[in-house]
Amino acid sequence: MREVCVLGVGLHKFGRFPEKSVEDMGRVAILNALDDAGIKFRDIEAAYCGRVYAGLMGAGLRVINEVGQTGIPIVNVEQACSSSSVAFRLGYYAVGAGICDMALIVGFEKMERGMLRATSPAHSYEELVGMSTPMAWYALEIRRHMEQYGTTAKQIAMVSVKSHRNGTLNPYAQYQQEMTLEQVLNSRMIADPITLYECSPTTDGASAAIICSREKAKKYTNSPIFIAGWAAGSPIYEKGKDYDELGIRLTEKLAKEAYERAGMGPEDMDVVQIHDAAASGEIQRFEALGFCNKGEGGRWVEEGRTEIGGEIPVNTDGGLLSRGHPVGATGLAQIAEVVWQLRGQAGKRQVAGKLKAGLCHNSGIGGVNITILKT
Amino acid sequence: MREVCVLGVGLHKFGRFPEKSVEDMGRVAILNALDDAGIKFRDIEAAYCGRVYAGLMGAGLRVINEVGQTGIPIVNVEQACSSSSVAFRLGYYAVGAGICDMALIVGFEKMERGMLRATSPAHSYEELVGMSTPMAWYALEIRRHMEQYGTTAKQIAMVSVKSHRNGTLNPYAQYQQEMTLEQVLNSRMIADPITLYECSPTTDGASAAIICSREKAKKYTNSPIFIAGWAAGSPIYEKGKDYDELGIRLTEKLAKEAYERAGMGPEDMDVVQIHDAAASGEIQRFEALGFCNKGEGGRWVEEGRTEIGGEIPVNTDGGLLSRGHPVGATGLAQIAEVVWQLRGQAGKRQVAGKLKAGLCHNSGIGGVNITILKT
Repeated sequence: MREVCVLGVGLHKFGRFPEKSVEDMGRVAILNALDDAGIKFRDIEAAYCGRVYAGLMGAGLRVINEVGQTGIPIVNVEQACSSSSVAFRLGYYAVGAGICDMALIVGFEKMERGMLRATSPAHSYEELVGMSTPMAWYALEIRRHMEQYGTTAKQIAMVSVKSHRNGTLNPYAQYQQEMTLEQVLNSRMIADPITLYECSPTTDGASAAIICSREKAKKYTNSPIFIAGWAAGSPIYEKGKDYDELGIRLTEKLAKEAYERAGMGPEDMDVVQIHDAAASGEIQRFEALGFCNKGEGGRWVEEGRTEIGGEIPVNTDGGLLSRGHPVGATGLAQIAEVVWQLRGQAGKRQVAGKLKAGLCHNSGIGGVNITILKT
Repeated sequence: MREVCVLGVGLHKFGRFPEKSVEDMGRVAILNALDDAGIKFRDIEAAYCGRVYAGLMGAGLRVINEVGQTGIPIVNVEQACSSSSVAFRLGYYAVGAGICDMALIVGFEKMERGMLRATSPAHSYEELVGMSTPMAWYALEIRRHMEQYGTTAKQIAMVSVKSHRNGTLNPYAQYQQEMTLEQVLNSRMIADPITLYECSPTTDGASAAIICSREKAKKYTNSPIFIAGWAAGSPIYEKGKDYDELGIRLTEKLAKEAYERAGMGPEDMDVVQIHDAAASGEIQRFEALGFCNKGEGGRWVEEGRTEIGGEIPVNTDGGLLSRGHPVGATGLAQIAEVVWQLRGQAGKRQVAGKLKAGLCHNSGIGGVNITILKT
């Protein structure tokens, strides 16, 4: 595998756009990424599209046709909430293998309110006991964590307060307003202990990235961002252990793999994006990614150590909670944020100092996908 | 890219199985492929799943979990009728690049009668003029061919007669009965000149393949089948030319690319699988793949030159028309047939002589995917 760079990234604002189609939003994200990379659409040799609800049979083709019809192979990936980070990984394989030199990755989604409410598989135990996914899973997971480690409702709420504060600094974020601790704690209970403002919203949006070989990147930039490490996997059956429904143990295992591939450790990460479909999820995955000991995640949040000015800034763009969560577009939005941070282009939410590396953690049903980027 | 082999293939019978789920059928196909390869599920390092209607969010995971939960990354691909051949290509990239040594590809689908009837995109010209896809497209395409080259309704019907005859020789085929020329020609008109028995059916089924590096294959077999060439692309906008809706010109272009990668030409192919969603489609794609001159495809069929005993046997397993067309599983079924033919394991439908290479042509909405296999 040869080295692969991210040459450009682009987003369409996340939010609610009832008047826009995925084609409209995808076009904007792609054009922004092409512009950022300094290339033309005709330079693109392959495309990988992540989407879930955006329509079967050719949704990627329709979005990409908005920009051009040059005959490139277009692959549609559907991996629930990690669709576009998986698409990114497949594009990385293709460029890394020398199949092509320059690829486009695009994620897009248009969602309705409440769209994720009733997605328990038919006849599953979740459906039988009346659990609605994914919040019931997150609730069970963090409830145990609270019992075992003393994590508090306040600490969980502070994740959301932080994310909404960061969101106000990100013009692409769905929510542009701060939340007080009281507002979060007092919002409607969804799945005890998770409140409404601790849940990520449904969102419309699109995201795109251009990746290329190191050799190719030289023509366009002196400071490309490199794909340094990655890992992906699905839950493992381990005899005598609880089923790892939301992939906490899986995340621990994959983080090690990704750090090893990158030749780095958690101590080398200057900025981190974590899949916070629920605020509580950020705490447990922050631990699983090796940034602190198990059970200490809540305290890190409470002590402000994951704020933009803290030791390890987490979800600087507002995360799923405030930037929003258009499922097919989320993974690439995380990657775009780390690229901007590493380049020093993150505006008001820029992490101070010379950044060298960042990590993205994106979960989909049945899988976790980790990407490490470096300057 | 290092060399990659197909180590094993397996199918679940194609047909109508109202009592079975995609999990049931996928499990059978995977276990058959593992058995054929002589490996255990724990040897598999990654999985690529092709499916369309089989359920969003984790369908691949649910099918693969039937066999084991070893934590491998599982990718879901949706590429309409070419979903599993695209999944196969992505697995090939990953093994070829050295990302993993052994990968599972699986395709599965459960369809209802008439499922493909009304899939014209909303507000498209096809919808506005009342065209139902895909048969209306095939009809327009072949009608022009009839005018230009004198292709006859009889020649088109003979494709279906041949496919149904081949289907009776394939225990996995949906249809196990021959059709007379009169039956095909006199069946209900669907989209003039295409009759009912010239349309591929909706089908339930599953297909699987195990691919691995050449090095790895040595441990299991002395006669692996190699992936010799491939090509994939989407329609191209060409100023002043008609839009290439069903990818005829695209197929011509991609065939050249695939032959070049394989270091072979159409004259080297001993067996060919063509995407015959409509009988007429086989004729035009046979030409586009370079097996005869443009306009001669109908005559080749009429003269029996594409029969199992002919010069270039086409759709030896019954093709989409008789083997059936469970959209997500079709591409891998083509690959399985070529593998069996090249190994001399195709039973009553075995092409005579020592076969060296075969080609699979699989189309999905907005894309064409070609795979060349060799001994």
